[in-house]
Amino acid sequence: MSIENLSQNKCFDGWLKQYNHQSSALNCTMRFSIFLPPQVNDGAKVPVIYWLSGLTCTDENFTQKAGAQRVAAELGVAIVAPDTSPRGEDVADDENYDLGQGAGFYLNATEPPWNTHYQMYDYITEELPALIEAMFPVTDKRSICGHSMGGHGALTIALKNVDKYQSVSAFSPITNPMKCPWGQKAFTAYLGRNTESWKAYDSCELMKEAKATLPMLIDQGTSDDFLKEQLKPEALSQVAVDMGYPLELRYHNGYDHSYYFMASFIEDHLKFHAKYLT
Amino acid sequence: MSIENLSQNKCFDGWLKQYNHQSSALNCTMRFSIFLPPQVNDGAKVPVIYWLSGLTCTDENFTQKAGAQRVAAELGVAIVAPDTSPRGEDVADDENYDLGQGAGFYLNATEPPWNTHYQMYDYITEELPALIEAMFPVTDKRSICGHSMGGHGALTIALKNVDKYQSVSAFSPITNPMKCPWGQKAFTAYLGRNTESWKAYDSCELMKEAKATLPMLIDQGTSDDFLKEQLKPEALSQVAVDMGYPLELRYHNGYDHSYYFMASFIEDHLKFHAKYLT
Repeated sequence: MSIENLSQNKCFDGWLKQYNHQSSALNCTMRFSIFLPPQVNDGAKVPVIYWLSGLTCTDENFTQKAGAQRVAAELGVAIVAPDTSPRGEDVADDENYDLGQGAGFYLNATEPPWNTHYQMYDYITEELPALIEAMFPVTDKRSICGHSMGGHGALTIALKNVDKYQSVSAFSPITNPMKCPWGQKAFTAYLGRNTESWKAYDSCELMKEAKATLPMLIDQGTSDDFLKEQLKPEALSQVAVDMGYPLELRYHNGYDHSYYFMASFIEDHLKFHAKYLT
Repeated sequence: MSIENLSQNKCFDGWLKQYNHQSSALNCTMRFSIFLPPQVNDGAKVPVIYWLSGLTCTDENFTQKAGAQRVAAELGVAIVAPDTSPRGEDVADDENYDLGQGAGFYLNATEPPWNTHYQMYDYITEELPALIEAMFPVTDKRSICGHSMGGHGALTIALKNVDKYQSVSAFSPITNPMKCPWGQKAFTAYLGRNTESWKAYDSCELMKEAKATLPMLIDQGTSDDFLKEQLKPEALSQVAVDMGYPLELRYHNGYDHSYYFMASFIEDHLKFHAKYLT
């Protein structure tokens, strides 16, 4: 394991640091950001919140726009923001924003040409936490959250790994990708035409099979342009009701799909996770 | 007077809005952002803090990265973020980042080809506040702050207009542009080789001539790469001591020139201004 420090910025008495590393799961060089709160300066180990970003994003959209460091510094939690797909000239890509680089959908692709690199599920659930816990002053307490495609990633990963995370939250997540254009396009490319295989990465399907629960918070803006066609939180909400799953779904009047929405409520999410992490 | 709304995002129960308008001072189309706090939804008029950005920036760097809306919403102040220069295909430019578009230095240029459009001082002090106060639910109470080149702009504009502003603050400002490479290059181009004319836009020179004072706060990171060669806060600090000017200059250990520094202390600045605005 080795990592290369690319940048560091002092922020709210903690440090935001960017690293490159060679990912074995993804077979390429990957970048991530980590915010280390000031508590680690005094020798403390802190729990980690993983943030999964949406389509077209890198690690930087969240670190620059969400305003999360202020709250993380107060709570004493680290935040790790990975990239949204494998990257590089030899990594398969698509000319559209919703497939290929920047659009990894946090799954393990089975179909060529994607299966060579697009193993984001393994990267997020195995390789990255092992790296973070080996290289930084953090505990093995983890929570996970994300936005849009990253909200889908956080929900599916948490639903499949209740033993690895303490809590899960999402802003504007794609909750039923089997039934929306973004998900159908990506799953067809990455997983093939057999929709049975898609169920392993659909939050609604996974929640139907859930044997155990995690605390789950979802925030959704009512003026989100993608709400009806792509996100479908009402589908997940219905499954939660049917299954008795403890989902807290909040609608926020007038908010859209942007980081201005997330900045407005990130404090709630980080405090929600901190309840279960500390 | 007319303005064209380009975007609006709900944020901390207020609204961030972007507009285009035809500027008579600058002789081109200009974009600005305004954050209107939730207090205006109830019919209140609120005071305005003007934010002046640094080299290469537009209105968006501040609105996306500073995390100011949370505090402005709490305090009940609007924030107006203009662009950093005139813009457009017919506006003179330079291939370097520190002259021309994105580098207006908040002055009135006298030298061709710059003098046709580069009248940022008039724009910020006259045209823009008149427009804002005519078109939005704001009072005529104003404060001004900025970063780097925008910190220079805020300080010089406040020092020259103690009657128009209640208070002034800056992050990492260019305090003595006559004596630093950025300032000397820009002033030579925009104002010509006679350095006497430069004194009208140099905070150290203006403070020496100050007949009245304004509350003034400056924050500076000690790990700022531009500190020694370009920013020179110790020069302004010395003038303040000599003149008995009430400057509060704070150095912050380990912080750099980035928005992560500003995000860490923007709450202090907005609360500083709110004391004098409300």
